[in-house]
Amino acid sequence: MSERVIKIGLLGLGTVGGGVYRVLQKNADLIARKTGVRLEVAGILVRDVGRDRGLSLPPGVLTDRPEDILDDHTIQIVVEVMGGTGPAFDYVRRALKRGKSVVTANKDMMAEHGKELFDLTREGKSDLLFEASVAGGIPIIRVLKQCLAANRIEAVMGILNGTTNYMLTRMTAEGTDFQTVLQEAQALGYAEADPTNDVEGYDAARKTAILASIAFNTRISFPAVYVEGISRITAEDITYATELGYVIKLLGIVKDTPEGIEVRTHPALLPRQHPLAAVNDVFNAIYVRGDAVGETMFYGRGAGALPTASAVVADIMDAARNIVHRVPGIISCTCFEERPLKEMGRVRCKNYLRLRVVDRPGVLAQIARVFGDNQVSLAAVTQKHSEGTKAELVLVTHEVAEQNLRDALAGLTGLDVVERICNVIRVEGDS
Amino acid sequence: MSERVIKIGLLGLGTVGGGVYRVLQKNADLIARKTGVRLEVAGILVRDVGRDRGLSLPPGVLTDRPEDILDDHTIQIVVEVMGGTGPAFDYVRRALKRGKSVVTANKDMMAEHGKELFDLTREGKSDLLFEASVAGGIPIIRVLKQCLAANRIEAVMGILNGTTNYMLTRMTAEGTDFQTVLQEAQALGYAEADPTNDVEGYDAARKTAILASIAFNTRISFPAVYVEGISRITAEDITYATELGYVIKLLGIVKDTPEGIEVRTHPALLPRQHPLAAVNDVFNAIYVRGDAVGETMFYGRGAGALPTASAVVADIMDAARNIVHRVPGIISCTCFEERPLKEMGRVRCKNYLRLRVVDRPGVLAQIARVFGDNQVSLAAVTQKHSEGTKAELVLVTHEVAEQNLRDALAGLTGLDVVERICNVIRVEGDS
Repeated sequence: MSERVIKIGLLGLGTVGGGVYRVLQKNADLIARKTGVRLEVAGILVRDVGRDRGLSLPPGVLTDRPEDILDDHTIQIVVEVMGGTGPAFDYVRRALKRGKSVVTANKDMMAEHGKELFDLTREGKSDLLFEASVAGGIPIIRVLKQCLAANRIEAVMGILNGTTNYMLTRMTAEGTDFQTVLQEAQALGYAEADPTNDVEGYDAARKTAILASIAFNTRISFPAVYVEGISRITAEDITYATELGYVIKLLGIVKDTPEGIEVRTHPALLPRQHPLAAVNDVFNAIYVRGDAVGETMFYGRGAGALPTASAVVADIMDAARNIVHRVPGIISCTCFEERPLKEMGRVRCKNYLRLRVVDRPGVLAQIARVFGDNQVSLAAVTQKHSEGTKAELVLVTHEVAEQNLRDALAGLTGLDVVERICNVIRVEGDS
Repeated sequence: MSERVIKIGLLGLGTVGGGVYRVLQKNADLIARKTGVRLEVAGILVRDVGRDRGLSLPPGVLTDRPEDILDDHTIQIVVEVMGGTGPAFDYVRRALKRGKSVVTANKDMMAEHGKELFDLTREGKSDLLFEASVAGGIPIIRVLKQCLAANRIEAVMGILNGTTNYMLTRMTAEGTDFQTVLQEAQALGYAEADPTNDVEGYDAARKTAILASIAFNTRISFPAVYVEGISRITAEDITYATELGYVIKLLGIVKDTPEGIEVRTHPALLPRQHPLAAVNDVFNAIYVRGDAVGETMFYGRGAGALPTASAVVADIMDAARNIVHRVPGIISCTCFEERPLKEMGRVRCKNYLRLRVVDRPGVLAQIARVFGDNQVSLAAVTQKHSEGTKAELVLVTHEVAEQNLRDALAGLTGLDVVERICNVIRVEGDS
């Protein structure tokens, strides 16, 4: 009896696509034993079919015509590894409409168009799997959908962007400033020439939207995520955070609260003993708190050809197994609730503040009064170095609603003794 | 249209059983939405049906007759949370023979009788799920079988026993000795009156056998695991390890090597910067290295009613979903290879040694010669405190085959300058 074969079409053969192809080849026998079926890459969509990619590809497998893959009825699984929301989105829709299962690593597409795509699978009874779209090789989508499914998820906090985690790790270890470490990251290929997407938090925010959608069974799209990046973090902030017993990390945070769900991405001070605090360099990790399981954390490489391929190929194997057993879509969209989002002004955090003030008696009293008038209570105030008539103050608030803090900050800018509010960074994981 | 119901039978209502019941009740609606079916606990086997367990149970659900559950054709999923390999094993066999799906938290049974039980599911097309048998609430069985399925697994190292990790954490933090911390753990309920199973490594070794079976697709039973416990670790060992930049952890270790697979459980020195080194107190964690994904780690609570229930109920949900879609056993036994085990004598490690020797010139030369004669090369030798005519030596070897080290140790015991080989502990995670 000949072995059953399932044909796959790859859309894209860049870093991730090349990794997927290599893993499918290298571990072909293992994959066949585990799924009961041999996976054959029958077509790969590329822009330039003539380019040498250092891969030994069967003749004729490359094509620059999407219809060669999307209209081929023998291809049952389409693997989208192009990225972006342009043609990729169009191709995935077409694949799903034709009843094909789709595996994608595309966070942009899933964070913006997840609902529309899942609606197409419901018609077509196909799989739409996207493990690689969040945290690369770290299993988290399937973990939330399946392994931790018995839990009501209380909180998810993730280090979801390797570039910024590398930069913050270097800034912490070496005391270097943001611009220096950004250039270093660019030289190493960890940061792009235009680093906006990483350093301003947009990449992490898209992943945060996807995590929130799954954690709370409620569709959250990227524009609903509150975002702040790390470009305003200075060497001073990191030094002071260290002195206070914290590290600074860019976090994707989703929380269940009685007033709605919180979905936000911003830098935060984390206590040094928090499980996420030791996650350094380009590594990613996701901390999940569930009502039954308690605290868990999942750690690994959030990017790179082979780690991402690990997640993509696991999805392909699931899709193939589901085709063999005639149950594509057995675990489909889990956004069956519509929970309200909490306004950012009502989010409650501790906060770290760094102020530049006039260095003379009575200044602290004026500042403290503004905080008090806005129901912001201070946990700690430290005067850092002073230069001539100016001094730097570091303050840590107790937990306070964001709106009260904003009102207090507005009040501070009206004081002539406050020269500048240098930075405000939320504190997480401290309760 | 009335909602579909799947009936469940619980075998046991102790700590884990009570947790499973509570999670099923508390998150009943969420579970129904995710699986498409309502789960009803139709029978619970207990020894004493009259005892008050602080749970609000429907009348008549408790029984002391196993046949009430095993012979009830309306019960489709049997959840075994009794533990041990006596009646539990018999009941699970009977359930599988009747075509029921089985969810179990029973590491003893799975580590000793996994093959026989899986053979029964192959006949019956039922699920046998056992996520909770290793590391409590941490997803690792499904992670290896599904999420990391595209990888050839190179190594798994786990902190799999909370009791011993708590003890080692306290010994490290406080410098206390083994007996003191054992009594403390017993007073807190972390260690049992007879602590043998935990402190001698048998509990961790059973979990190691299960992890090895899945990681290498090769059935490894508990008796095949090399085991050493932590009862010989002293406060001195921990102090010296700290000085060398290591922490001591009890690890379950499985490794793929050209000469066969290694499956062992023993204390080990881990570099302080290793991801597992920061896993403290009763927490568990499993580090997995795959050929595609690279380094990953999974962290959480390895025991306790609710964390374990999180894993058990996730398995119940999978089993229920598979029944609804008529695909029980869609992911079944993955032991389709028979890879050879490597003899312990051929395992290569760095080693830490603590010796009590006569404190006089020329002693080190004699010792070094014995090591050299046995092809054991030393990376570091430090003389620790001396008392009168005796001194303590701490040595670290380069990587060496276990047999060569054993031969060297036999040679040392023949030297009259060596009073005692106080301890030998392997070093892991250092390459």
